[in-house]
Amino acid sequence: MVTSRTRRSILVAVDVAICDPTRSVGVTVDDAGGEVQRNAEFVQSLERGLAVIRAFDADDHSLTLSDVAHKAGLTRAAARRFLHTLAELGYVRNDGRQFSLNPRVLELGYAYLSGLIVPELAMGHMEELASRTHESASLSVLDEEMVVYVARVPAKRIMTVQISVGTRLPAYATSMGRVLLAHSPKDWLDGYLARVALRPHTRYTVTTRQRLATALDAVHRNGYAFVDQELEEGLRSVAVPVRSPSGTVIAAMNCSTHVSRGSAEKIVAEFVPELRRTAEAIEADLKVKDRKRPASAAG
Amino acid sequence: MVTSRTRRSILVAVDVAICDPTRSVGVTVDDAGGEVQRNAEFVQSLERGLAVIRAFDADDHSLTLSDVAHKAGLTRAAARRFLHTLAELGYVRNDGRQFSLNPRVLELGYAYLSGLIVPELAMGHMEELASRTHESASLSVLDEEMVVYVARVPAKRIMTVQISVGTRLPAYATSMGRVLLAHSPKDWLDGYLARVALRPHTRYTVTTRQRLATALDAVHRNGYAFVDQELEEGLRSVAVPVRSPSGTVIAAMNCSTHVSRGSAEKIVAEFVPELRRTAEAIEADLKVKDRKRPASAAG
Repeated sequence: MVTSRTRRSILVAVDVAICDPTRSVGVTVDDAGGEVQRNAEFVQSLERGLAVIRAFDADDHSLTLSDVAHKAGLTRAAARRFLHTLAELGYVRNDGRQFSLNPRVLELGYAYLSGLIVPELAMGHMEELASRTHESASLSVLDEEMVVYVARVPAKRIMTVQISVGTRLPAYATSMGRVLLAHSPKDWLDGYLARVALRPHTRYTVTTRQRLATALDAVHRNGYAFVDQELEEGLRSVAVPVRSPSGTVIAAMNCSTHVSRGSAEKIVAEFVPELRRTAEAIEADLKVKDRKRPASAAG
Repeated sequence: MVTSRTRRSILVAVDVAICDPTRSVGVTVDDAGGEVQRNAEFVQSLERGLAVIRAFDADDHSLTLSDVAHKAGLTRAAARRFLHTLAELGYVRNDGRQFSLNPRVLELGYAYLSGLIVPELAMGHMEELASRTHESASLSVLDEEMVVYVARVPAKRIMTVQISVGTRLPAYATSMGRVLLAHSPKDWLDGYLARVALRPHTRYTVTTRQRLATALDAVHRNGYAFVDQELEEGLRSVAVPVRSPSGTVIAAMNCSTHVSRGSAEKIVAEFVPELRRTAEAIEADLKVKDRKRPASAAG
């Protein structure tokens, strides 16, 4: 139940997303900090409830009521109602003063993932790729200006890479993003290039539209994208497209590694053939799949 | 904006969940079909918006407005408002008459997953397990009466197993569920055994409380759970616990296979040592991890 008092309250969006600094967790505000005018069809309490879920992240998987109110840009009273509702629905649990998410929230993303054929088909091939290269392999799709990880096989090492299915990164600074941008419809890409804010994540990040356009042309010419420490110092990655049986690029797949592994030339020479071979295996499976009915099994 | 008209409308929950037939996608109704009385703190439009997201699943990744209204138990007018709101927030897209989810919905579950250390640490070891056994390996946690998959390495075959991170299955009929139930606090387990509805998924499903309690005792005695075609005919699975450095069971890990692979005895003899070795490797990593600060990297 949203009271008119909370509906009128002034909301401040707090930017907490590490991977996606252009996007705020809180509800929408305009540049002047005022609430954006939505049309009458917009259900604001749904927006606010989803902002409460997004307030929890890798750094803050346990939050107090005040933390949630602050991160979601809500009053304490409003945050309490949303947390109470999410707890009653099984999405949130409450241990004393601390709130955290329950595994049930996975069912919200599961609805999307379970409709995708490519990640399931790709996983086996990506495991082989990761075991041949001894590096992480990932598969992404484009969501507006961000790449979103839909499958990932981490390298076998004891280290926390804060990347998992669902991670979002800015397309322009990642190898998978460059592959997906290069294969986007021209009208959309022109609009993207006109509006995108190219932030320098490191001193190597391409930050001019002209250089980004040149890099995207190179993707077509070379058939792969190589990104050298543009997102994080020390990190290099190479990506190739994955195509549907009709030839449309439906995903990008990459291998990423540390500069200590060798020169840029060595990385490209080593990873590109492995990535292509893996993409071809996935594409071959997609063709077989196209002719078969899905079977069911469970664990 | 929820009008009083839609707030009063009588809602019918439509049961569409395949894996979880006890749980409805729609909003809550009592046995007589009337709306359950919620207290004033409950934000019903959040419940309804989440029901709209859950209306999409593996079988229905593209839905019309009428489909969504039907599956979420909403009027067409209410469904339109929620779809419009989700589209404006980037969670849903609209191609003519069809609606589908955008990859952005993954960020809702990502908040939960990115806070978990075990799945990331476990993946490398589970890949080795899957490659040694040539079968799928999975890791689950308990969410009330369901197991929820938090990591999975599928076997390298061309077949669609409709299981991915986020899949929910009834605990009593799965090997991972039996491991997690057996290690639940006694009070909670007594309550579970008193209230659980044991549905026969196959002719082999354990459907009496007494036999389930006996099976849970066996988990403690043997150190593993073996489930023989109780969830799906032809499917056998073996699970072991994964423990935190302090000895608490924090997850269950399984291998599943088809009856054609060999006798029940052969499966247990083959898989249990492999699963134990893998659980020990994950537990050793967790101990190391406990003493280290997490590092960061990106792809």
